[in-house]
Amino acid sequence: MTRTVLESKSKTVVIGFDEPFCVIGERINPTGRKKLAAELEAGDFSTVERDALEQVACGAMVLDVNAGVVYNSNPNPNETEPPLMRRMLEMVQGLVDVPLCIDSSVPGALEEGLKIAQGRPLLNSVTGEEDRLEAILPLVKKYNVPVVAISNDDTGISEDPEVRFAVAKKIVERAADHGIPAHDIVVDPLVMPVGAMASAGQQVFALVRKLRAELGVNTTCGASNISFGLPHRHGINAAFLPMAIGAGMTSAIMNPVRPVEMEAIRAANFLMNHDDNGAQWIAFSRILDAVEAGTPFAEASKASQASGAGRGGRRRRRA
Amino acid sequence: MTRTVLESKSKTVVIGFDEPFCVIGERINPTGRKKLAAELEAGDFSTVERDALEQVACGAMVLDVNAGVVYNSNPNPNETEPPLMRRMLEMVQGLVDVPLCIDSSVPGALEEGLKIAQGRPLLNSVTGEEDRLEAILPLVKKYNVPVVAISNDDTGISEDPEVRFAVAKKIVERAADHGIPAHDIVVDPLVMPVGAMASAGQQVFALVRKLRAELGVNTTCGASNISFGLPHRHGINAAFLPMAIGAGMTSAIMNPVRPVEMEAIRAANFLMNHDDNGAQWIAFSRILDAVEAGTPFAEASKASQASGAGRGGRRRRRA
Repeated sequence: MTRTVLESKSKTVVIGFDEPFCVIGERINPTGRKKLAAELEAGDFSTVERDALEQVACGAMVLDVNAGVVYNSNPNPNETEPPLMRRMLEMVQGLVDVPLCIDSSVPGALEEGLKIAQGRPLLNSVTGEEDRLEAILPLVKKYNVPVVAISNDDTGISEDPEVRFAVAKKIVERAADHGIPAHDIVVDPLVMPVGAMASAGQQVFALVRKLRAELGVNTTCGASNISFGLPHRHGINAAFLPMAIGAGMTSAIMNPVRPVEMEAIRAANFLMNHDDNGAQWIAFSRILDAVEAGTPFAEASKASQASGAGRGGRRRRRA
Repeated sequence: MTRTVLESKSKTVVIGFDEPFCVIGERINPTGRKKLAAELEAGDFSTVERDALEQVACGAMVLDVNAGVVYNSNPNPNETEPPLMRRMLEMVQGLVDVPLCIDSSVPGALEEGLKIAQGRPLLNSVTGEEDRLEAILPLVKKYNVPVVAISNDDTGISEDPEVRFAVAKKIVERAADHGIPAHDIVVDPLVMPVGAMASAGQQVFALVRKLRAELGVNTTCGASNISFGLPHRHGINAAFLPMAIGAGMTSAIMNPVRPVEMEAIRAANFLMNHDDNGAQWIAFSRILDAVEAGTPFAEASKASQASGAGRGGRRRRRA
């Protein structure tokens, strides 16, 4: 059984076929968040702090940290991203004790992150592009970390799932050449918006099954992409995630502060027999009770976490 | 591709691998509904009327009709059920134009239903019990209708999914002996409560895949059984249904008046590429808008139906 082991200073998270779905919190990312980008350039990390605490309270098991700000004062990310990545990682791992996912398109920022991150972080990401393979895989090997492999290459993102599978296979093979085992590759098969491509859902489900059966790899995705541009997109996400989990998807990079999606994942874990005695579901159902009574989800989640509910099945009940 | 064809007087519904999930409304059933049972004994059909209209408005494509009342005045269902089934079917098919599912454990009531139902109803059900096989399969053949096959036999309901598969296989083979094709058998693999049996979800997903691959049959289930006894059971149901659909389940007998479950099914249809241009999803999202604005789900659904939204993709938009 494939197991991708991530570690923080003191906590281990396993992404695996026999594990609860791994929720990787996506919020600490200035892309498309102008206010956060401006704050980061100004040295204000208060939003990062809040996002770190809130996401972990809501159930994120890993936090993605992306420092992709284009500064007004300096438009060269090769200069600005590495020190910002360092500061953000230091801050986040000082606040919360979950493994981190170092997310950048700048190799220098990835390496700076690898130097500072405690434990065994996830590197995000390598693609099938030749220059990325040659820049990133040596870092993966040198620091002995797992890596997200995105299924696009020098020809771009193919709409043909067979091509995306072939790209993933190439990355896994190239990684093997570097001495990196398949269980340290977490493939992102790329999720297209179902509003633009009618076969998008079925493509992902088929790809996940095939990646798992033929390459033996764990998988991840930017889950919310599936519902891009659609009304009531949380409803689409909340069906997509259980379907992807049923097909064998083992993690997603997503917003854990959304109760609808988190409810779908908790229920899917239970239905996959990855929630002993339903203890996690029952603890989560108390959070839902609080949300129904008017408490915001993040606040209800924090209160539940503080009470220790759902850890090791304590305080569980049969309803 | 397996297609089970149901008909009302003028409407055809196909249960099939390449069709939207078939929602069979379960509400017209006095089992466990004391008030309805008393009404039926007193000749009051007002709840049946309301349930028929409301379920179809909310998206039921087929209506199950069960006349299983034990009268206070006459405890013999072999005498009371056949005429009651007749009256209920006459009333329901006078009100709504969807195919019906004739549901009884009394063979005489099933046959009375077959005589009166217009079109091609679904018969519910046969089991692997010898006396049921010999009583029901000749009716299925004589009236040329599809039948629900429940995976229990004279030894009861097995907790072993391999035994339940073997029972389904026996029913399909016995039906073939009667000249009934596999595409007219809709297997219910039996859904256990996940709160009592941790493997219940995975059992169903594996069974559905196997029934489809090896016997080529459509499948159904009493979907809400999965969440029996659990808190926030609609959340469990709303993850179970997409996962079952992803595994290949093609219908369920369920309550269509619940928006959470119906939202999950609409989203799953879209993700299975069974919703051209997302027209059904977009029409449904308007119903969700109305529900969020305070309109009850059944009322919002009726209004949407009256406006013709979602039929053939009219009035669709890209959001």
